[in-house]
Amino acid sequence: MNHYMKMALQLAQMTSGQTGTNPAVGAVIVKDGKIIGMGAHLGYGEPHAERQALAACNTDPAGSDMYVTLEPCSHHGKTPPCTEAIIAAGIKKVYYAAKDENVEVRGHEVLDATGVQVAHQQETEIDSFYHPFFTHLKRKYPVITLKCAMSLDGKLALCDGTSKWITGEAARYDAHEERHVHDGILVGGTTLLRDNPRLTARVYGGGNSPVPIILLGDGMLHDHLHIFDHDSRPIIFTTNEMNMKYSDRCDLRVGERPLEEVLKVLYEEGISTLFIEGGASTLTSFIEQELYDRIILYIAPKLFGESGYGLYQSQVPKMESVVQLDLEKVESLESDLKLTYRKA
Amino acid sequence: MNHYMKMALQLAQMTSGQTGTNPAVGAVIVKDGKIIGMGAHLGYGEPHAERQALAACNTDPAGSDMYVTLEPCSHHGKTPPCTEAIIAAGIKKVYYAAKDENVEVRGHEVLDATGVQVAHQQETEIDSFYHPFFTHLKRKYPVITLKCAMSLDGKLALCDGTSKWITGEAARYDAHEERHVHDGILVGGTTLLRDNPRLTARVYGGGNSPVPIILLGDGMLHDHLHIFDHDSRPIIFTTNEMNMKYSDRCDLRVGERPLEEVLKVLYEEGISTLFIEGGASTLTSFIEQELYDRIILYIAPKLFGESGYGLYQSQVPKMESVVQLDLEKVESLESDLKLTYRKA
Repeated sequence: MNHYMKMALQLAQMTSGQTGTNPAVGAVIVKDGKIIGMGAHLGYGEPHAERQALAACNTDPAGSDMYVTLEPCSHHGKTPPCTEAIIAAGIKKVYYAAKDENVEVRGHEVLDATGVQVAHQQETEIDSFYHPFFTHLKRKYPVITLKCAMSLDGKLALCDGTSKWITGEAARYDAHEERHVHDGILVGGTTLLRDNPRLTARVYGGGNSPVPIILLGDGMLHDHLHIFDHDSRPIIFTTNEMNMKYSDRCDLRVGERPLEEVLKVLYEEGISTLFIEGGASTLTSFIEQELYDRIILYIAPKLFGESGYGLYQSQVPKMESVVQLDLEKVESLESDLKLTYRKA
Repeated sequence: MNHYMKMALQLAQMTSGQTGTNPAVGAVIVKDGKIIGMGAHLGYGEPHAERQALAACNTDPAGSDMYVTLEPCSHHGKTPPCTEAIIAAGIKKVYYAAKDENVEVRGHEVLDATGVQVAHQQETEIDSFYHPFFTHLKRKYPVITLKCAMSLDGKLALCDGTSKWITGEAARYDAHEERHVHDGILVGGTTLLRDNPRLTARVYGGGNSPVPIILLGDGMLHDHLHIFDHDSRPIIFTTNEMNMKYSDRCDLRVGERPLEEVLKVLYEEGISTLFIEGGASTLTSFIEQELYDRIILYIAPKLFGESGYGLYQSQVPKMESVVQLDLEKVESLESDLKLTYRKA
């Protein structure tokens, strides 16, 4: 990958998880072989990466080259079009990696028509970085990652329900890093009431905690739940109207809702990436209904033996109907493994 | 690692699995910067690597250096001591990697006393290559590898018992390579009678098939079993005396025997490395009794859901008593993973 495009990608990656339903974008401005400006889109509604990079310039950017991870926008959204700023600054040439074909008028054409040189530099790594964004843009529900920590023989807990701790510290820390780059974190009612989790992203330097989302079913909230102390207001789906007494402490959605509808509601609330942590029956529901994009498994070097807490609780009668995945990545975290699979 | 020692190791690795209870050894002889002889121990009772390498010389080996993976022997076994041959050939200096401390008189000392220079070059990779050999030498039963192919959620079969095929071709071929380097292959009676396996090593170029060993229990043999066509005479442990009618077609051991005793019998029969392929209850017995050195898991990117065919069928009541393993190696085989664990 081009040296400067690589930096633009690094800038984008730094802000991944804090831009809501907007894509994370990075931009670098180069003049006479020197970087004169660099920036990233920092949050939904804030200026785009191109404008941040231009604002960072102490040297006149006229005649310079800009490297940006995503094709510059040419439309008025929350902010004015980046193409205008690029033209006004006198940028000579724009290199962009991912195409934005979900717009009526492409930035490439607008720049081209006004005499700014434009070059599309396709990069597989950057295309795959934007894959979730373009996915949720189309289907209008979040990009979904299922996560679980389990033994080598596929158990989320011992036969008596014990699950503390399956994996080591490095794997548990990594899971907090994953929470950090997601907009929402979802657990089922059983997990909420049994474990009373905090659902925060505890990463070094302070994490960006995802919005807690609970599929409570007919369970009953109580005063001592840690999620009520969360930085973000929890979104709670329940069929039990008695929970209305907690409506000042969370965003309550009462009534039966199919999972797909839950996901559309979350997307409307600005959740573009969703991290689902369990328990087993919640994970099983999402897998059964094929509502996921990735599965991240932290696998401990342990055998738990027989227990009712398997990862996937459906009965599959035929080899043709097993859940098929594609292995994306294998990482070692101390003595644990982190396996990332995509839906096949 | 030293250039020539690396070659000696490669020679040893080539014959791994065909030397019975002897270790695989490689030797290289170097004179004036040229390899003048190389060889490996090819089979139990045959000449050792040092003699093979000397026999391969077309140049007089007097004054040359020898690189050998294991300390040369100084005792009369099936063959006369290698130290004698080294001295007679006028070798100037012997470099060896793994020490052989399981002998009354060490080769190093014998050579040293007669004026041949000797240098111990320790290499972690070579020490670990000989680890199984020294292990079984001490405890008098085979080095044991448990193997299984399973889904990502730890199942050896679907709820109805279907298990064909869990993994892809590359993983299945790799399992044949593993069979090839083992002396014996063991399955339980249920697997024998249900799958009627051939238990041969089907590797390109023709494999060295391990001796089939069956823990038949009170099951009954029949005429159409593929193991009766095996190159090696199967060893069958059974409690059912009716099987005596097949005593001309296999080596029958009738009576109750604890697993540990079975292993000692196998060792006496020349099985120094044992590959145990299942089924689940056989694997569980060996795990429960801690009678294994390694576990090799081929993991398919599939979820099988609930089924009675879990890898480890014991109930583990406490986190302190789960089976703990150490991850040794992770390999990708097409879309499957091969995970190798050692007993912790």
